[in-house]
Amino acid sequence: MSDVITFGEVMMRLTPPGRKKLLQTDQLDILYSGAEANVSCALAYWGRTAAHITSFPDNALGHAALANLRKMNVDVEHIAFTDGRLGLYFVEPGAINRATAITYDRLPSSFAGIDANTFNWDKILEGAKWFHWTGITPAISQGAADSLLAALKVARKKGVMVSADINYRSGLWKYGKTPAEILAPLVDLSQVVVAAESDTDSIFGIRGDGSGYASTAEAMKKRFSGMECMLASRRAAPSASHNSLSGVFWNGNLVFETKTHDIDNIIDRIGSGDAFISGFIFASLSGYTDQEKIDFAAASAVLKHSVEGDYNLVTEDEVWGLVEGNTGGRVKR
Amino acid sequence: MSDVITFGEVMMRLTPPGRKKLLQTDQLDILYSGAEANVSCALAYWGRTAAHITSFPDNALGHAALANLRKMNVDVEHIAFTDGRLGLYFVEPGAINRATAITYDRLPSSFAGIDANTFNWDKILEGAKWFHWTGITPAISQGAADSLLAALKVARKKGVMVSADINYRSGLWKYGKTPAEILAPLVDLSQVVVAAESDTDSIFGIRGDGSGYASTAEAMKKRFSGMECMLASRRAAPSASHNSLSGVFWNGNLVFETKTHDIDNIIDRIGSGDAFISGFIFASLSGYTDQEKIDFAAASAVLKHSVEGDYNLVTEDEVWGLVEGNTGGRVKR
Amino acid sequence: MSDVITFGEVMMRLTPPGRKKLLQTDQLDILYSGAEANVSCALAYWGRTAAHITSFPDNALGHAALANLRKMNVDVEHIAFTDGRLGLYFVEPGAINRATAITYDRLPSSFAGIDANTFNWDKILEGAKWFHWTGITPAISQGAADSLLAALKVARKKGVMVSADINYRSGLWKYGKTPAEILAPLVDLSQVVVAAESDTDSIFGIRGDGSGYASTAEAMKKRFSGMECMLASRRAAPSASHNSLSGVFWNGNLVFETKTHDIDNIIDRIGSGDAFISGFIFASLSGYTDQEKIDFAAASAVLKHSVEGDYNLVTEDEVWGLVEGNTGGRVKR
Amino acid sequence: MSDVITFGEVMMRLTPPGRKKLLQTDQLDILYSGAEANVSCALAYWGRTAAHITSFPDNALGHAALANLRKMNVDVEHIAFTDGRLGLYFVEPGAINRATAITYDRLPSSFAGIDANTFNWDKILEGAKWFHWTGITPAISQGAADSLLAALKVARKKGVMVSADINYRSGLWKYGKTPAEILAPLVDLSQVVVAAESDTDSIFGIRGDGSGYASTAEAMKKRFSGMECMLASRRAAPSASHNSLSGVFWNGNLVFETKTHDIDNIIDRIGSGDAFISGFIFASLSGYTDQEKIDFAAASAVLKHSVEGDYNLVTEDEVWGLVEGNTGGRVKR
Amino acid sequence: MSDVITFGEVMMRLTPPGRKKLLQTDQLDILYSGAEANVSCALAYWGRTAAHITSFPDNALGHAALANLRKMNVDVEHIAFTDGRLGLYFVEPGAINRATAITYDRLPSSFAGIDANTFNWDKILEGAKWFHWTGITPAISQGAADSLLAALKVARKKGVMVSADINYRSGLWKYGKTPAEILAPLVDLSQVVVAAESDTDSIFGIRGDGSGYASTAEAMKKRFSGMECMLASRRAAPSASHNSLSGVFWNGNLVFETKTHDIDNIIDRIGSGDAFISGFIFASLSGYTDQEKIDFAAASAVLKHSVEGDYNLVTEDEVWGLVEGNTGGRVKR
Amino acid sequence: MSDVITFGEVMMRLTPPGRKKLLQTDQLDILYSGAEANVSCALAYWGRTAAHITSFPDNALGHAALANLRKMNVDVEHIAFTDGRLGLYFVEPGAINRATAITYDRLPSSFAGIDANTFNWDKILEGAKWFHWTGITPAISQGAADSLLAALKVARKKGVMVSADINYRSGLWKYGKTPAEILAPLVDLSQVVVAAESDTDSIFGIRGDGSGYASTAEAMKKRFSGMECMLASRRAAPSASHNSLSGVFWNGNLVFETKTHDIDNIIDRIGSGDAFISGFIFASLSGYTDQEKIDFAAASAVLKHSVEGDYNLVTEDEVWGLVEGNTGGRVKR
Repeated sequence: MSDVITFGEVMMRLTPPGRKKLLQTDQLDILYSGAEANVSCALAYWGRTAAHITSFPDNALGHAALANLRKMNVDVEHIAFTDGRLGLYFVEPGAINRATAITYDRLPSSFAGIDANTFNWDKILEGAKWFHWTGITPAISQGAADSLLAALKVARKKGVMVSADINYRSGLWKYGKTPAEILAPLVDLSQVVVAAESDTDSIFGIRGDGSGYASTAEAMKKRFSGMECMLASRRAAPSASHNSLSGVFWNGNLVFETKTHDIDNIIDRIGSGDAFISGFIFASLSGYTDQEKIDFAAASAVLKHSVEGDYNLVTEDEVWGLVEGNTGGRVKR
Repeated sequence: MSDVITFGEVMMRLTPPGRKKLLQTDQLDILYSGAEANVSCALAYWGRTAAHITSFPDNALGHAALANLRKMNVDVEHIAFTDGRLGLYFVEPGAINRATAITYDRLPSSFAGIDANTFNWDKILEGAKWFHWTGITPAISQGAADSLLAALKVARKKGVMVSADINYRSGLWKYGKTPAEILAPLVDLSQVVVAAESDTDSIFGIRGDGSGYASTAEAMKKRFSGMECMLASRRAAPSASHNSLSGVFWNGNLVFETKTHDIDNIIDRIGSGDAFISGFIFASLSGYTDQEKIDFAAASAVLKHSVEGDYNLVTEDEVWGLVEGNTGGRVKR
Repeated sequence: MSDVITFGEVMMRLTPPGRKKLLQTDQLDILYSGAEANVSCALAYWGRTAAHITSFPDNALGHAALANLRKMNVDVEHIAFTDGRLGLYFVEPGAINRATAITYDRLPSSFAGIDANTFNWDKILEGAKWFHWTGITPAISQGAADSLLAALKVARKKGVMVSADINYRSGLWKYGKTPAEILAPLVDLSQVVVAAESDTDSIFGIRGDGSGYASTAEAMKKRFSGMECMLASRRAAPSASHNSLSGVFWNGNLVFETKTHDIDNIIDRIGSGDAFISGFIFASLSGYTDQEKIDFAAASAVLKHSVEGDYNLVTEDEVWGLVEGNTGGRVKR
Repeated sequence: MSDVITFGEVMMRLTPPGRKKLLQTDQLDILYSGAEANVSCALAYWGRTAAHITSFPDNALGHAALANLRKMNVDVEHIAFTDGRLGLYFVEPGAINRATAITYDRLPSSFAGIDANTFNWDKILEGAKWFHWTGITPAISQGAADSLLAALKVARKKGVMVSADINYRSGLWKYGKTPAEILAPLVDLSQVVVAAESDTDSIFGIRGDGSGYASTAEAMKKRFSGMECMLASRRAAPSASHNSLSGVFWNGNLVFETKTHDIDNIIDRIGSGDAFISGFIFASLSGYTDQEKIDFAAASAVLKHSVEGDYNLVTEDEVWGLVEGNTGGRVKR
Repeated sequence: MSDVITFGEVMMRLTPPGRKKLLQTDQLDILYSGAEANVSCALAYWGRTAAHITSFPDNALGHAALANLRKMNVDVEHIAFTDGRLGLYFVEPGAINRATAITYDRLPSSFAGIDANTFNWDKILEGAKWFHWTGITPAISQGAADSLLAALKVARKKGVMVSADINYRSGLWKYGKTPAEILAPLVDLSQVVVAAESDTDSIFGIRGDGSGYASTAEAMKKRFSGMECMLASRRAAPSASHNSLSGVFWNGNLVFETKTHDIDNIIDRIGSGDAFISGFIFASLSGYTDQEKIDFAAASAVLKHSVEGDYNLVTEDEVWGLVEGNTGGRVKR
Repeated sequence: MSDVITFGEVMMRLTPPGRKKLLQTDQLDILYSGAEANVSCALAYWGRTAAHITSFPDNALGHAALANLRKMNVDVEHIAFTDGRLGLYFVEPGAINRATAITYDRLPSSFAGIDANTFNWDKILEGAKWFHWTGITPAISQGAADSLLAALKVARKKGVMVSADINYRSGLWKYGKTPAEILAPLVDLSQVVVAAESDTDSIFGIRGDGSGYASTAEAMKKRFSGMECMLASRRAAPSASHNSLSGVFWNGNLVFETKTHDIDNIIDRIGSGDAFISGFIFASLSGYTDQEKIDFAAASAVLKHSVEGDYNLVTEDEVWGLVEGNTGGRVKR
C-alpha cells in the first residue's frame, strides 16, 4: 500500500556513451524508465511510498526492468507479466545546435497489450493518496486507454487525488482514435492537470483570451469541470546544451509563477517534465503553500538536467536549496 | 555484381560486456549480424565479392546496420528499406556448465514484412555464382518464404549454385505452416544442403539405415532429387567453454570426414555454423578437392570460436594453417 | 515476513576490470555483497522470500548498498543505519597458477558496531522458516557475536531452522576472543552445519577416526548436541582457473556424496561456498530427498564459478540441469 | 564513378577518453580520418557519391582504416596499398582555457611515399563533378605534391570543378620546398579557394587594401587567374569550450556573409573546417544561391562542434534547420 | 634531496564515470591524491624537484598509491609504511545547480596514526628550499599535528621557506582540539599563508577593518609575527559548471590583484586551490615579481578546472599563456 | 646507481580490449614496454634497484612512456630524449587455434637513432652488478648495435656480469648486416646467454651432437669463449590458450632441468621470455643454487602468462610458491 500510484509503460532506454551517434558506437548504456515510473522513482527517492503499475514480458528483459525499478525503492508488487515485447527507445544526445534525437521501438509491447481487466484497481488504489498518469499511456493502445479509464473511475470513487500530465506526443496515437476523444473523459476525472497553452490548443482547441495562463486554465476548467488546478513548465532553449525554465501554476483562482532558472552545460534533459510534476506532487503531499509547490516543481525540473538518465536523483534538500538561491557552486564535503 | 549472394534477416545483437547477465549490466555491446549475412562477411573477408539481401527499417538503427555490413565489404546495394522494426537479440554468454542464453526480440521486423515482390531477383542474381540461404529465413514469415522461393527459382534458372543450411529453430515457425511443407520445395531447389541427421529426422522424418551419414544423405537425395551433396558439422560439448568439432561431407557418392578439433577456452561460439558453410562455399569456389572442402569448412568453424562476435574474422591462411596442423601456439610477428 | 533470514556484513567489493592488478588499473568494478547476503540473493532469485539483516552507514555508500540488495529482491526492511564505515574489499582475480588475492578494508564498519540490541529479533524472525549465519559474523566484533547469539536463541524458541557455515577466516578474530569459545554456543544452537574436516579440527580440535566424513560429523554431534546434520563441499584446485568440486552430506545417520564436477575456465569463484549452502537451504525448503539436497547444493556451487560477482545468478532449472547431466554446451534460444 | 573526389592522407586518430591527457590514460579511442576524407564522408552522409583517394600500408592498420571509410559510404575502390606506415595523430582535448593539443606521428607514411604515377587520375576523375584538395597534401612530400598536380591537370582538362582549402600548417613542409612555390601552380588550377586573409598573407604575401574580404580575394584573383571565388570561416574563441563562427564568401564579384553563430559546450572542434567546405560543395552541387551556399557551409561547420570525432554526422535537415534558426533546443522524437 | 617538500595525507579518490551518482554506477574511476601531494605533483610537472611526505599501509593499496605518486615524478623516498588503512573519498561530480558531493572514508588511516617521531625531519628537510602544509593535516589527528609542528621547527631552523594553506574543513577536527589552538603555533611558523577573509574570521576571529584584504592581512600579521605575506583565491560560482576566479596577494606591504577569469564548462574543480598555491610557490622559486606571482597562481588555479582529476597537468607555458591573454581557443599542433 | 642495468627500446603497446581484432575495435588499451625494460620492471618489483637505458622523443608520448616506467620503480635517470618517433606495436590477442598477431610500427624511432656516444656508459655502469641486453637491440640499427658494443666493453672492464637473450626476430635486421656478424662479438662479451637450440643453429650454424642441451651449449662455448653458461625455456603449445613450459640450464658443466608446467587459460603470454631471464637474474643475484636459479626462472615465466600486459607483476613469494608446488588454487585473503 503506497501513497502514490503511477501508471504507464516502462521501456529500456539505450544511449551511446560519450555523446556518440548510433552510427558511431558499438556500445550502449542502458536503463529502464518511463514518464510515469520516473515520477514514482522521484517520490520514492524523497521518502514517499510509491508503486508503479505496468506490464512486462516474462523474459530476461522484463525481469531486469522490474529489478531496476525495485532498486529505486518503487513498489513493484502489482506489476503484471503479459505477452509482448519490452518497448525500447534509443537516444542520441544532442549538443550545441544539434537536437537530441530519439528513435522509438515500442510496439507490440506487453504494456500495449493490456486491457481494462489486467489490473485490479480496487486493490491497487486501496489506501492510496495520489494517482498520476500522462497522455502517453492512452496514446499507446485502446486497451491502455481502457485500463486508465477504469483506474481513474476507481480513484475518484476512493477519493484519490489524480494528476494528469497531458504530454502530447504526435508520434503515438496510432490505433485509430483522436487524442481529443480519448483524453476528454480522462482529463475530466483528473484534478491536477499539467498542460502548456500549446497543448490545450492543439488537442482540444481550447485557448484563453490571450491575457495569460489563467485565462487558458479557466477555459480548460469550463470544459473539464473535474479539473481543479493547472500547471506548466516553460522552457526557452537557445541551444541543446543551454536552456532556461520557469513554472506557472493556476490554483483554480490565482496564478503563481517562479523565477526563470538558467540551465547551461546540460547533462541530460530527458525526464525533466516528469521531475516537474514529481516536485509538485511531493510539495502537495507535504502541505506546502501554492507558491512553494510551483517553486519546488520548477527547481526539481531544473536539477534534473544535471543528472544522467531519466530519474531525478536529487535530494529534497538540493531542491529546496535551489529554490532558496543555492547555485550549487560550493562542493559539499 | 557479386560472386556470392546471401539472403536473410540481419539483427542487432546486444551482449553484456564481461560475461555478465542482463540483470547485472548497465551497458551492452552491439553488433549487427545474421546467419546468412555472416556468410557474406566471411567470404568478403577472404576476398570474394559477396552481396547480402535483406530489408531494414529506414531509421537510425537500419542505417547503422547497413553501414556496419558495408564496413565488412559486403555489397549492400540491393538492401531494401521497408516498414517494421530492426530485429534484436540479447546474448547472455555462458561459461563452464551454464549455457549461453539468447533472448530474441524479432517481430514485427522489416524483414518479416517482405513479400515475393520486394526484391528484383533477376537483377540481383545476374552473374552470381552462388546463392546461400538458411532455414531461418522461411521460418520468419510467409512473405520471407515466398521471397526465398522466388529467389531459388531464378537462381536455378540462371545456373547459380544454391546452398541451404537447414538450421532448424523450433522457436520460430509461428505463422501457421509446418517446417516440412515450407522447406520441402526449397530444399529441392538446393544443390548443397547442410543438415545433421537429427535435422532430417525431426523436420522430414527422413532417417538413414543407421550405417552412417551416407545413408541419411542418400535417403535425403531420394526425397529431394535436386540436392547434390550434403554436409554437417558434429559437435561434442563437455561444457559451455569446451567443445570439440569435426565435419562430415557426402559428395553424392562418397563420405569425407575431418579430424576432431578440440576447442577449449571458447571466446564466442555464435556464428560457428555460419563459418562452417562459409568455409565450404569458399573452398568450392576455389576449386579445392572434396576432402579439402570439408577440412576447410571444419577448420573455419573451429577458428570462429576464437573471435568475438558473429563474424569469422580469420584469414584464409589461418584456416589452412589449422587444417595443416598449426595450433596457433606461436605469436605471429 | 520472509521465509529465510540471513545475517551478516555487506561490503563494497572493488575489482579491477580485465583481470588487472590494483597497480595496473585506474578503474574498479563495484558491487555489494557478503557471505550471508549472497545466500538471501540466491534464494530470492529462486523465488523464495528472503530478508537480509545488516547495518549500513547512513551515507551515499550505505544507501547504494541497500538499493543494490533491494534490486536482487532481498527484503531490506530490517536493515539498520548505524555509525561507522561501509566495509570494503579489493579483489585481484587470479589465473593459471597465480591465486586470487583479496585485500580487506573492513574496520571500523557500521556492522562491527552493532550490539545485542541493534535488531529486534523477535519481530524479524516472526514467521520465518530458516535462519542462516556464517562464522564471519561472530569473528568481526563482540557486538556482532552478541547480536548473533541473541538471534539464535530467538530462532530456536520460535522453531526456526538454523544453518551455520563455519567459514573459518584466520584473518578476522581480532577482538580478543578465540573462535572456539565464541563459536561453540552458536554451533550448538544450529541444526545444519557446513564444516570441512579441516575446520572442525583447527577450531575445535574435533577429528573423526579417519574413516570418513561420517566419523567427523559424529564427533561434532557428540560435542554439539543441537547440531542435526553436517555438510561440506570438497574442492581440488590444480590451478586458479581450473578446479573440481563435490559435496558430502551427513544427515545425522548416513552420508550422501555427489559426483565430482570439473570446473575449467573459471569466471569468478567468490561466493561459491555461499552458493553451496544456498542450494542446500533451497532444496531443504523444497522437500527434496537427502541425495537431492546435496546434489543441488554441489551443482549450485559449481555453476557459481560461471557467474561474475558474488551472487549465484543461475536458475533452478540450470542447477537441476547440471545435476541431471546437462553440461551447458548447447545454446539456449 | 563518384560525383566528388577527395585526395589526401588518412590517419589513425587516438584520443584519451574522458578528456584525459596522454599521461593520465591507459586507453585510447580510435578513428580514421583526414581533412579531405572528412569531406567525402560528409558528402556521402548527405547522399552524394564520393570517393576518397589515398594510400595505406597493406597491414591490419591499413585495412582497418579502409573498412572504416567504407562504413561511411565512401567509395574506396581507388585506394592504393603502398609501402610505409599509417600516419597517426594523438589528440589531447582541451577545455576552458587549455587548448586542445595534437601530437603528430606521420612520417614515413604510405601516403608520403606516393608519386605522380601512383594513381590513374584519368580513370579516377572520369565522370566526376568536383575534386577537393587541401594544403596539407602538398605539404607532406614532393611525391604527394606531384601527384596532386597531376590530378589537378586532369581535373581541369575534364572540366571537373576544383576546390582547395589552403589550410596552412607550419609544422609540415619539411621536404625542402616553400609553401609558396609548391602551392602557387596548384591554387592556379583551383576555381574555389578556402583561404583566410592571414593565409594569403603568410603564404603568398597577398594582402587586400584593408577594406574587407573582397579586396583580399581580388588580390588573390589577380595573382591566380584560375581562381573564381574565395571563402573563409571566421572564428572567435573566448575559450577552448566556447567559440563563435561565421562565414564569408566572395563569388568573384560580391561578398556574402552569414550571421555569427555562438558555439558553447564544444564537444569536438576537429574537422569543423572540413565541415565548412563540405557544406559549400554540397550547396554548390545542389544549385543553391550564393547566400545559401555560405549559410549552409557555416551552419555545417557550427554543427560539427557537436559531434564526437572528425566526421560531420549531421543531416542536411539539421544544417538547414540551423540556417533557418532552429537552435536544436527541442528533442526530436 | 628535493627543492620542495610537501606533507599530508594521500587518499584513493573514487569517482563514478560519466558524472553518475554512486547509486547509478557499477564502476569507479580511481586515482591517488591529497591537497599537499597535489602541490608536489604540480611542481614536479613544472620541472622542480619535489618530495612528498606521508604514510601508507603496507598492502596493495598503499603500494599502488606510492607507485602513482612516483609516476608523477614526486620523490617518494621518505614515505613511511605504517599500520592503518588507506583513506578514501568518493566524489559525485555536480553540474548546473547540483553541487559536487564528497563522501569521506578516512579513519583510521595510516597517516592519522603517525606521531612526532615517524619522520626524520632533519634528514628530509636537508637542502630543501620550501616546505608546504595545509590545515587538513593537523585536523586529522594529534599525531599528525605533532609531526607537523616538529617539521616546522626544523624547517625554520634550516631556513626553509614555509607556506601554509589554511584550508579549513569543519568536517575534520574530531580529536578534541579546536582549530585555533592547534593552528596558531603552526601559522606562526609559516611565512606564506593562504587564507581567505572568512577563514581568518571563523578560525581565529581575526577581521580587518573592512577596507580590503590588506587590513585583514595586517591583522593576521599582528597576531602571527612569523607570517610574512598572505594570499587567497576568490571564487564566484553562479553554478556548479560555471565559476569565476581571481587572486589577491598581500606581500607584507602592498596588495596585488589579478583579473577575474571566467571558468565555464568546468571539467573538475577539485585541486584548484592546490593549483593556486602550487603556482605561487613555483613563481616564488623562479624569482618572479609579486604581480607575476599572483597572476601565475590564479591562472594555474583557473587551468586546473580543465583537467580531470586532482593534479594540475598544465604546462608552465600554458599558465603563462593564460596570464598573457591566450584563451586556449586555438588548437596546438 | 642501480644493481641491474637493462638496455633496449621501449614502445607503446596498443591492444584492442575484449580480445577483439583491430578491425572490430574503436578503443585500444595502451602500455609502454620492451623486452629489456620488462626485465628492469620485474627486478624492481622484486625489490632490486634497476635502471633502464633507452631513448624517447621529447613529446607527450615520450614523457608518458617515461612516467610509466618510473611508476614501476625503474630508475629512469639516464634515459635520453632524442629525435625520432616512439615505436609502437599493435597486439591482436589470439585464442584457441588462432595465434596472437603483432603489427609493428617501429621506425624511425628515437631509439633507432642513437649511436655509440648517446649514452655515457662509464657513468651508467658505475657500481652496477648486472647488465642485460637482448638480440632485439642490435637488430634495430647500426647505431643501436654500436651503442650496445660500447656498453658491453665497459661492462666487462668494470666486472659487471652480462646476460644476453638472443631473442632472434627475423622481421628486424633491416639495416644491411647479418645477425651473425653483429651478434658474434656481442655474445662473446656476455657470460650468460639465453638461447634455444634453434637459435644457435639458425644464427650461427652452431649445433650440438644431438645428445641434448649440454652439447649445444658446449658448441657455443667453443665459439664464444666469453660465455660461461647458457639457458633456455622450452615451450609446447597445443593452442594459443594452452601451453606448457619448462626450463633448462647449462652451468658450464652440468645441465639442470625443471618440471614441465601446464599453462591453460592464458591471459597474456607476451613478456614471458623476459620473465624467464628476469627470474634467472634475480635468483643469481640472490645467491640461489643452480637448480633454484632455473626453477625460479621457469616459474617466473609460467606466472607471467597470468598477468595482463608485458610486466611480470607476481611476487617473489608467488614464484617460490609455484616452484614448491603451490598451484594458486586457494584464494589469498
